[in-house]
Amino acid sequence: MDHAADAGEPGSFDTIAILGLGLMGGSLGMALRRAGIGRVISGYDALPGRAERARALGAITTVAESPAAAVMGADLVVLGAPVLAIRELLGAIAPHLVPRAVVTDLGSTKAEVVRWARESLPDPSRFIAGHPMAGKERSGIEAAAADLFAGAVWCLTPDAGTAPDALARLRTLVAALGARPLVLDPARHDEAVAGASHLPLLAAAALVRAVSMQPDWPDVGRLAAGGFRDTTRVASGDPRMARDIALTNREPLLRRLDAYIAALQGLRAQVAAGDPEIERAFMDAKAARDEWLRTRSSHAGE
Amino acid sequence: MDHAADAGEPGSFDTIAILGLGLMGGSLGMALRRAGIGRVISGYDALPGRAERARALGAITTVAESPAAAVMGADLVVLGAPVLAIRELLGAIAPHLVPRAVVTDLGSTKAEVVRWARESLPDPSRFIAGHPMAGKERSGIEAAAADLFAGAVWCLTPDAGTAPDALARLRTLVAALGARPLVLDPARHDEAVAGASHLPLLAAAALVRAVSMQPDWPDVGRLAAGGFRDTTRVASGDPRMARDIALTNREPLLRRLDAYIAALQGLRAQVAAGDPEIERAFMDAKAARDEWLRTRSSHAGE
Repeated sequence: MDHAADAGEPGSFDTIAILGLGLMGGSLGMALRRAGIGRVISGYDALPGRAERARALGAITTVAESPAAAVMGADLVVLGAPVLAIRELLGAIAPHLVPRAVVTDLGSTKAEVVRWARESLPDPSRFIAGHPMAGKERSGIEAAAADLFAGAVWCLTPDAGTAPDALARLRTLVAALGARPLVLDPARHDEAVAGASHLPLLAAAALVRAVSMQPDWPDVGRLAAGGFRDTTRVASGDPRMARDIALTNREPLLRRLDAYIAALQGLRAQVAAGDPEIERAFMDAKAARDEWLRTRSSHAGE
Repeated sequence: MDHAADAGEPGSFDTIAILGLGLMGGSLGMALRRAGIGRVISGYDALPGRAERARALGAITTVAESPAAAVMGADLVVLGAPVLAIRELLGAIAPHLVPRAVVTDLGSTKAEVVRWARESLPDPSRFIAGHPMAGKERSGIEAAAADLFAGAVWCLTPDAGTAPDALARLRTLVAALGARPLVLDPARHDEAVAGASHLPLLAAAALVRAVSMQPDWPDVGRLAAGGFRDTTRVASGDPRMARDIALTNREPLLRRLDAYIAALQGLRAQVAAGDPEIERAFMDAKAARDEWLRTRSSHAGE
């Protein structure tokens, strides 16, 4: 490995392993190949046949039959699976990693993943948890796309023990894929993502359940249009990913749910009272969201 | 008026008045003109300058200075305003309608509108409340588009006193605009739309409030991506429209809010307990939504 590679050149990873070839892992493989990063991209998936489909779709160059085979000789290992599956993958790959391998993941929560990596890996200083803030309601390799991460914030959550060169190389890689690396600590990530992503997911699932379990759901479904479609979009995502979020980000998610239920009860009280001041609540929500959209589109131009 | 017009030919309306030229009224004008329906389309809006912009954008042919002037000689009158403004418009136009004029509206709730029309209009048999199930988070004439209603369900809510010829003509008109007329009674409409549209609106507004009022909102905003954007989209709509929904569809909306809060509390209990069976709730929500999407896209092909 030459000096440029150590300093974190985008092309510094030669052999890359992706474990888990669904929407996230598959999209990463496609993005890497489009960017010309990695001579060998080895892929493993627990679902029979999926790695072959990923190769056919251009997401990987080589099908691996096991996690151990996938990481053999890899200088970058990426775990792209629901959070609880990441725990198992960490245990499976630990004995087979080459010493200098950088390991990262694409999972939804970070504090637990970091803890498991510390327990499992021979050199936890070379593990940096990651989370690209991008997704789709469809899952699986068929939904994967090379541009999924373009312009997206990509969280990296190192801790005090992280090797600086490993972090530098991952940051460079993320930027080379057109995403925007954001370094923050695991607990702060989990707290923020509970509001940005996990609460919307539970809000959407509960909304579908609340209306679809009533006897007049056929009537509702006939009248439901773009508002219902978009408000509930994320409820069509992978249920196992959602379950693992609920199981691994409990306290932050409970705080968000309590704040949300309180906000709903506030609106309910105004509806019950026929209070025209409810317009103020809608104005405040609109102002906060519109301002967020403006900030976001100005970032997208960075 | 010839027999074909009485039977409900698409071209049977000659002089059309649109009162309220925001997203909905403006889009209707554009759709009518694109379809070649109406020789004269007269438009009024309470907002100074908006009717002129609507004419410049091709939504109307003639600017009216008052509701009374707009409806003069019109054989079709359409009220496109938030629900409480419709009440005032009904009073303002009542003395100026020609006897055979068909009157309809585009408001979000129907039972109250029907009641007000019965109280206000000289011939309530020629009023049929309507509600196209289409919208956008942006409001105003600038957001209007001729294709807003294409493929959309368009509710018409006659009652026992409605004149059959008036209903037939409106159905034909709605179909001529590329929308799908759905006739149902006002109370049933309001109950269904509370689940399909009003609950999503309150859910989205409460979600924005719950996260944007916390001190770590900047963190959350930085990580928020497509999931947050879509789940909250309808919270960027017109706050006055939202207020009028809350004030005129109270009982159905309270029932929906109670079911929603109960669904959220159910998920909260499973999160608190670390219950892996929460996956079942996500699976059920996904199944119901995916099935709804399938049904919906098969309807769109009708």
